[in-house]
Amino acid sequence: MSAELEVYQRQSFGRTLGLGRLAGLLVVDFVNGFNDPALFGGGNIGPAIERTVDLLASCRRMNLPIAFTRIVFEADGSDHNLFVAKVPALGQLTEPAVCSQIVPQLRPRPGELVVRKRLPSAFFGTDLAAWFTARGVDTLLIVGCTTSGCVRASVLDALCHGFRPIVITDCVGDRAIAPHDANLFDLGQKYADLLSRDAVMNALRAPQRHLSASN
Amino acid sequence: MSAELEVYQRQSFGRTLGLGRLAGLLVVDFVNGFNDPALFGGGNIGPAIERTVDLLASCRRMNLPIAFTRIVFEADGSDHNLFVAKVPALGQLTEPAVCSQIVPQLRPRPGELVVRKRLPSAFFGTDLAAWFTARGVDTLLIVGCTTSGCVRASVLDALCHGFRPIVITDCVGDRAIAPHDANLFDLGQKYADLLSRDAVMNALRAPQRHLSASN
Amino acid sequence: MSAELEVYQRQSFGRTLGLGRLAGLLVVDFVNGFNDPALFGGGNIGPAIERTVDLLASCRRMNLPIAFTRIVFEADGSDHNLFVAKVPALGQLTEPAVCSQIVPQLRPRPGELVVRKRLPSAFFGTDLAAWFTARGVDTLLIVGCTTSGCVRASVLDALCHGFRPIVITDCVGDRAIAPHDANLFDLGQKYADLLSRDAVMNALRAPQRHLSASN
Amino acid sequence: MSAELEVYQRQSFGRTLGLGRLAGLLVVDFVNGFNDPALFGGGNIGPAIERTVDLLASCRRMNLPIAFTRIVFEADGSDHNLFVAKVPALGQLTEPAVCSQIVPQLRPRPGELVVRKRLPSAFFGTDLAAWFTARGVDTLLIVGCTTSGCVRASVLDALCHGFRPIVITDCVGDRAIAPHDANLFDLGQKYADLLSRDAVMNALRAPQRHLSASN
Repeated sequence: MSAELEVYQRQSFGRTLGLGRLAGLLVVDFVNGFNDPALFGGGNIGPAIERTVDLLASCRRMNLPIAFTRIVFEADGSDHNLFVAKVPALGQLTEPAVCSQIVPQLRPRPGELVVRKRLPSAFFGTDLAAWFTARGVDTLLIVGCTTSGCVRASVLDALCHGFRPIVITDCVGDRAIAPHDANLFDLGQKYADLLSRDAVMNALRAPQRHLSASN
Repeated sequence: MSAELEVYQRQSFGRTLGLGRLAGLLVVDFVNGFNDPALFGGGNIGPAIERTVDLLASCRRMNLPIAFTRIVFEADGSDHNLFVAKVPALGQLTEPAVCSQIVPQLRPRPGELVVRKRLPSAFFGTDLAAWFTARGVDTLLIVGCTTSGCVRASVLDALCHGFRPIVITDCVGDRAIAPHDANLFDLGQKYADLLSRDAVMNALRAPQRHLSASN
Repeated sequence: MSAELEVYQRQSFGRTLGLGRLAGLLVVDFVNGFNDPALFGGGNIGPAIERTVDLLASCRRMNLPIAFTRIVFEADGSDHNLFVAKVPALGQLTEPAVCSQIVPQLRPRPGELVVRKRLPSAFFGTDLAAWFTARGVDTLLIVGCTTSGCVRASVLDALCHGFRPIVITDCVGDRAIAPHDANLFDLGQKYADLLSRDAVMNALRAPQRHLSASN
Repeated sequence: MSAELEVYQRQSFGRTLGLGRLAGLLVVDFVNGFNDPALFGGGNIGPAIERTVDLLASCRRMNLPIAFTRIVFEADGSDHNLFVAKVPALGQLTEPAVCSQIVPQLRPRPGELVVRKRLPSAFFGTDLAAWFTARGVDTLLIVGCTTSGCVRASVLDALCHGFRPIVITDCVGDRAIAPHDANLFDLGQKYADLLSRDAVMNALRAPQRHLSASN
């Protein structure tokens, strides 16, 4: 994409947002059904989940506000929407279904928020933005799946709500790699800083918490 | 993307939403600055604008509710947000600036809504969803630029707000073709029906208004 | 309030919105805990619940889209917000608690939406507006409790989202009568039509569905 | 309202939220048309404006983020909504109209945000919440008019968005005193702390910034 990149750079895209005063962690849709290639998974989602384990532990040690999302629909279809009309298998993600539970290695702890949602963005039709605002968060570390779906939607809405989004590139995954790559390009150029997990963990540890994005 | 497509089809993505009872037209950011390769334009945006002229005339003949968007920032920077921080040149799009005016060939008429926005989506931080809801619209024909930016964000939010989004594939454009194509793939699989302008115009004319999406 | 009324009339407040094409029914917070004076109830809430039974049956016969709300918080406090900080007893309204269940005489049926919320408005932080929009609703019949709290907040947000709100004056109730009356005054002057249950039921039955508000 | 108050206290209403880390100032609709009894004014709005002059100066000295709202509609009626349908005279508040300009004694300075809105709440259909969030604000001092209309709607939405609302009781006003008083009661019981201007100014000056609400 070197030709594209030249256009974007000439038009001033892709600047760095940096880290603000307080970061929160947002874990998007890392549930069993998205870890299962037979259902909604595949691609690089499994490794992204594994790499998130240490990041989550690190954020817990720092007492950062942590929120998880799950897609949950009613079994009677009363809350089905246009997203389910477009992707009917999502209707399997009911409250008790195994496929809608957060993967065991990332199980939320008491006091960590679990947001139920019926749309791609973690913010649309939820009170998540208020939850982070009330806790003084101005920066969001974002991991999860899929990069081209609920992660991208959540990253964009994070920016719109006034939170600096940092996409942790090796802790997000997608069922297919071409959309994963294409969406990381868009996100890095327009809406978010892109950083590896280790770069983020080093930056959070640093006393002055200064981040330089390395796309 | 045939391997990707196979995964998406197996996981039930890409179903057709179809046309509802009443369609509205949403024209996203077809302003001079996005028609100018030296500013935010390039790629296939120019042809998309030209192909929209007839579509707009057709929607006007049918008295469909029509809304346009413009990005507008204050000259004093008081309303600058993280989107401008990421893409600083957007700050040039002030109310009187030539680059922020809708292109002459698509000039809005009295009674058509012009939404000023400071973020990618036509819906975020605006009252556009309520405007369409109050007019009984349940389907949105969406044209504009850029496919990978404000169009995609607006299409997704249209779906989230309960409007069936129809992306008119030859009336949307982007400054670079690879992101244009990658985003049309995502939109067609997850959030919207994709139709050519002529297919939409034929469907709107048909007495029973039945659409079959041909991705 | 005759002096106040004169000011409002002179300044053009209090016009009638009327009934649109399709009405939905919104039942706000008629749960056991708001029917119990020892918890959040009292005043005229009990009679408002009883008068809603026939209205609900009538709306079901007409196949109107019907949505209910419940306030639901997590037992671990992870989702507690400023509303709970202001009114701590709300934290008792957990998913399994008897006090958070919809009263038995208004029990939702399969296919009717039950919205869980953590804030006064039925719309804030929920996808309720999209649910009604996708069903073609442009008018909302609103009942529930409390008039000065969650009903008022929901009526105002209904208006903001583009739905004509009709407050059914004898199917809304409050724990204290002075705030009930003061809020009906505000709602009728600024945001909604006020009609009795019988007037609404007659209007819905009429072939031409024309409503004249009688404040 | 002593009987009402007893009910509210027994049910745990009316707790104090207190001041957070950083306060912003929100000035709601203090425009010429709401200072003019012949248009939308009257009651105690004039004195509320005068008492806000010193508060604004004080907030500027402390470099608090400051935002103002104006109601602005298009002259061609393209953006008229259900609020204008309910209160038709609001349509006079067009961009150039004298009645829609902020009163001269509170004129915004460069860098202070002026939000144009078409609905009661300063937050609905605007990007105001993101503006405060991006600036680290978690507490909002709220002044303006009218108490029973746009102030109440803005206070409630402030709470919903995660900002602790502090209503400055002698810097808010209404066209009629009974609704002013009734709404201050509701706000203090359910959604906000109520403080006099002098109490707020003293608290902001104090090194430890500790507020005790005196309803």
